[in-house]
Amino acid sequence: MPLTSRIKGVIPIAPTPFHADGRVDGTSVDRMTEFFLAAGIDGLTILGQLGEAPKLDHAEAIGIAGRVIRLADVPVIVGVSAPGFAAMRALAREVMELGAAGVMIAPPNTLRTDDQIVTYYRQAVEAIGADVPFVLQDYPLTFSVVAASAVISRIVTENESCVMLKHEDWPGLEKITAVRSFERDGSMRHIGILTGNGGLFLDFEMDRGADGANTGYAFPEMLVDVVKLSAAGQRDAAHDLFDAHLPYLRYEQQQGALGLAVRKYVLMRRGVIANDTLRKPGLVLSAEAKGEVDYLLARVARVDGRAAI
Amino acid sequence: MPLTSRIKGVIPIAPTPFHADGRVDGTSVDRMTEFFLAAGIDGLTILGQLGEAPKLDHAEAIGIAGRVIRLADVPVIVGVSAPGFAAMRALAREVMELGAAGVMIAPPNTLRTDDQIVTYYRQAVEAIGADVPFVLQDYPLTFSVVAASAVISRIVTENESCVMLKHEDWPGLEKITAVRSFERDGSMRHIGILTGNGGLFLDFEMDRGADGANTGYAFPEMLVDVVKLSAAGQRDAAHDLFDAHLPYLRYEQQQGALGLAVRKYVLMRRGVIANDTLRKPGLVLSAEAKGEVDYLLARVARVDGRAAI
Amino acid sequence: MPLTSRIKGVIPIAPTPFHADGRVDGTSVDRMTEFFLAAGIDGLTILGQLGEAPKLDHAEAIGIAGRVIRLADVPVIVGVSAPGFAAMRALAREVMELGAAGVMIAPPNTLRTDDQIVTYYRQAVEAIGADVPFVLQDYPLTFSVVAASAVISRIVTENESCVMLKHEDWPGLEKITAVRSFERDGSMRHIGILTGNGGLFLDFEMDRGADGANTGYAFPEMLVDVVKLSAAGQRDAAHDLFDAHLPYLRYEQQQGALGLAVRKYVLMRRGVIANDTLRKPGLVLSAEAKGEVDYLLARVARVDGRAAI
Amino acid sequence: MPLTSRIKGVIPIAPTPFHADGRVDGTSVDRMTEFFLAAGIDGLTILGQLGEAPKLDHAEAIGIAGRVIRLADVPVIVGVSAPGFAAMRALAREVMELGAAGVMIAPPNTLRTDDQIVTYYRQAVEAIGADVPFVLQDYPLTFSVVAASAVISRIVTENESCVMLKHEDWPGLEKITAVRSFERDGSMRHIGILTGNGGLFLDFEMDRGADGANTGYAFPEMLVDVVKLSAAGQRDAAHDLFDAHLPYLRYEQQQGALGLAVRKYVLMRRGVIANDTLRKPGLVLSAEAKGEVDYLLARVARVDGRAAI
Repeated sequence: MPLTSRIKGVIPIAPTPFHADGRVDGTSVDRMTEFFLAAGIDGLTILGQLGEAPKLDHAEAIGIAGRVIRLADVPVIVGVSAPGFAAMRALAREVMELGAAGVMIAPPNTLRTDDQIVTYYRQAVEAIGADVPFVLQDYPLTFSVVAASAVISRIVTENESCVMLKHEDWPGLEKITAVRSFERDGSMRHIGILTGNGGLFLDFEMDRGADGANTGYAFPEMLVDVVKLSAAGQRDAAHDLFDAHLPYLRYEQQQGALGLAVRKYVLMRRGVIANDTLRKPGLVLSAEAKGEVDYLLARVARVDGRAAI
Repeated sequence: MPLTSRIKGVIPIAPTPFHADGRVDGTSVDRMTEFFLAAGIDGLTILGQLGEAPKLDHAEAIGIAGRVIRLADVPVIVGVSAPGFAAMRALAREVMELGAAGVMIAPPNTLRTDDQIVTYYRQAVEAIGADVPFVLQDYPLTFSVVAASAVISRIVTENESCVMLKHEDWPGLEKITAVRSFERDGSMRHIGILTGNGGLFLDFEMDRGADGANTGYAFPEMLVDVVKLSAAGQRDAAHDLFDAHLPYLRYEQQQGALGLAVRKYVLMRRGVIANDTLRKPGLVLSAEAKGEVDYLLARVARVDGRAAI
Repeated sequence: MPLTSRIKGVIPIAPTPFHADGRVDGTSVDRMTEFFLAAGIDGLTILGQLGEAPKLDHAEAIGIAGRVIRLADVPVIVGVSAPGFAAMRALAREVMELGAAGVMIAPPNTLRTDDQIVTYYRQAVEAIGADVPFVLQDYPLTFSVVAASAVISRIVTENESCVMLKHEDWPGLEKITAVRSFERDGSMRHIGILTGNGGLFLDFEMDRGADGANTGYAFPEMLVDVVKLSAAGQRDAAHDLFDAHLPYLRYEQQQGALGLAVRKYVLMRRGVIANDTLRKPGLVLSAEAKGEVDYLLARVARVDGRAAI
Repeated sequence: MPLTSRIKGVIPIAPTPFHADGRVDGTSVDRMTEFFLAAGIDGLTILGQLGEAPKLDHAEAIGIAGRVIRLADVPVIVGVSAPGFAAMRALAREVMELGAAGVMIAPPNTLRTDDQIVTYYRQAVEAIGADVPFVLQDYPLTFSVVAASAVISRIVTENESCVMLKHEDWPGLEKITAVRSFERDGSMRHIGILTGNGGLFLDFEMDRGADGANTGYAFPEMLVDVVKLSAAGQRDAAHDLFDAHLPYLRYEQQQGALGLAVRKYVLMRRGVIANDTLRKPGLVLSAEAKGEVDYLLARVARVDGRAAI
């Protein structure tokens, strides 16, 4: 079931559960996978930046991918970003062999010009093979690479295997409009656009033409509902639900290790993963931060009972 | 009325109003000043980054400062950041002469190490004079300078004239806690901490020990109420009001020229400034963006009638 | 005598001489201008990055420009880079009025994509007027903006008033070859390419198609001779002279305030300027550094007697 | 034979030889090791940034380390920098088991404040074990981390296993002087300081207190001689030899893939490695660049016959 450009809906970015001592927690991987499936997701992305992929070794990455793919009856996308194409190819071929639907590739932070970015993706496709569907990750705040809309169009046009954009530029609404305008004027074929950045602008991203969410919010069921309500034209209802979550969502969306620690803390409190451990270098939530999260969740729960934990 | 370390409350960052052709709009400067005063502010900061200060020449800067200081019966803080100390000194001395309460200094983006940052502020104080109270601006996302809590403590301890921290690190809650802990353990004297970053975490910043807000949100009356409610211990009420604004506040908080264009558009719609023009290089809001802002304000207005415009 | 795309030869980047207390030293400005003229230069650039332009106020900049233009019988190019177009326009119009041959514009460090860079120069030309010849400064190491060869071609093609490239990308030889290839294949009109970066690759830049040097080396007479020898096809002789200077040139080419302090120290020792003062924030050469410079100059002087000082 | 703080001399950074198709070329690894040993080196560093370590997988890295350690009768230092401590630990423990003398650790590019850098090295030592001697790599231009002299002192003082500084800050001479001054005033114990950055300032680095070179220049025999002459107080002779190489050395020192491609091309021409292939993403030297290298080497060979190839 390869990933295609008709992909839609909610594809969470899964964290990687660890034991308190830092070993991968396979049981939690399984339980988390079941949890996401029960939330009504349309796919699952693993081994991304917030899956702490750069801290895993190859065998661990393969082990996690195997477990998730075995359990999931939805397309599984595997992050394969790497400093060298040899490692990228090895991981991509192995996970496709295991049944992945596609891979996700972020650009290295040395790229600056339009041509450098386009060339990088051309070489990446040569490396992994043109038969492997891939997701283009556009996340300037973390990767320091700014891909203009025109660059995205060039990558899509050059590489048939580019089937989806993980959009997480910020500010980023105009970019969705721009990319969709290329489709309308015929200069670019259609691809799926699913948005990340913790969901901070999901409400309007759907209006601008996104096909769904591709982000790791600790309440994927909210993402699923907002995307459905938006797709059904129920704009006010979508915003009502989204706004109820926004005070906490904003807290979880804080960049880097802090946001991930918040997310893992909540998933642990929800019983999804056994520990909220981040691999080193990481961080540990302060008591104040935990108190703030608890307070926010209690407030969300007044509107959305699923947040009562 | 010099600025002191006992400063508290809300000190908006004022934008600079321009005519449609880019000339400074003095009439709007006056009306805007009256608007802020009517909102119950405790001070006013002008010529900051979001006041488009780097796009003004010296005479324009002095002209704006003179107008605002004449009208305002609250402390006026003037941004004097500059690539060279000669220009910083000239502007600082002139605005203090005009009656400013203090100045704000952001670090140049070339600073990296702790010592470089501390040295820069020591030299800046030598340049402007130790008699000029100053605000230390800590805004890594825009200025690319990361000042550790310990560095802030060193700057405060070395320079008696440092009376306030404009805190806008992100994630930044732990930094407020850290700086306040230095005061409690006696290693640092007290200074005012007012927070920026568009107010995105104002609710919790107050809990962590901030003294108020120093940011340019288009509804300063909300900031005033949230700060008062927090100071009065009415935590839930503070969050209720804050959360009602958050969907729009998040939209205005988008980095760079976009967020400023949104802010100016709303201030124009509120009748505060005549035009929402940004000086070049800037940007013009798309019709979609204006529609999104209008939609968000209508929703805020259901809870806070002052947003009905 | 406006600058044209046929510009060739050596155009030094002049430092700004200060008195020990930081005031502009007009007498040294005059003497320095005479010194450069006596070295056989083909033009002179003032108020660039290494002219400490960001540390000057508008009146000082105009004062220096007036003095230099009055004395110089060669084209004078004035750096007008500024955070806002209002200041850029004001400075550009005034110095052209005073008799400048053209202006130099560096990009602000916020530009990332090809289109952002092209748009910036389009707006800059609108601001200063299409009648003002300008030099495009391409210096990624200092300005953090990477302009691809194709971007340079677009800027040249869009703006008739772009007559020269100050090339100082590093590594940068292939970029000269690429830009010249655009001229050969007819996709771009001819412009002058003069190279900077302290002259560190001047020997090969000439071979690759550069028209000369546009850099601030303390021995402009060497640059003049190397450019002449290269233009005359005397490759080995050009390298012989260049190589004799390289040990010191490399020392002066160190980035930032250090390299400039070295340069000013040598110009002071040569009697060109009265003091080697940098405006704050700057630095003061250590005794070790001065000793190293003296040692290097003595070695250069064994081959090129003009370095005996 | 563990690495100690008394290390001195020349420790080249070895490139990783590949076949034309990108596979690791073991035969060339062996020949290259013999070549370095024949040059009179005092140690060998493998799997550094210019060893293309980030493009190797774990098994390849171990394979190369094993081959080199088996052949070399000098201390071998292995680069173990990694985004996560799990991978760093695994590689460090395995290569020490194989007989490595120590490891080298570069900081991740997210570190900014003094404390962040110090904390990172503390955690790295916890990860690899305090029994593994390590080299602190200080290379701001590539890693974007600026470690003040005081930070280096703190890391050395906190971690007994930090035995050497690979110094490649630029400008960097004052930093060597500063670190040595900490030793003299008793605030820091002695460590070895060996310098990198392609050797561009080796001549003066020795004068400032460096113990030798730790860089990958294609003529290690020159580095050996310069270090010996400097140590013997033959300053002029050291400079004479260094200066003869400088025109080419500067060319090889160009940042990033270009400099490495030049280095591999020359090592191939010298018969040391079979191919000058870089793993993708890399680059291929242009004909012009090869011609320039050939020209420069011919000129070096007039003084140093060993460069005649």
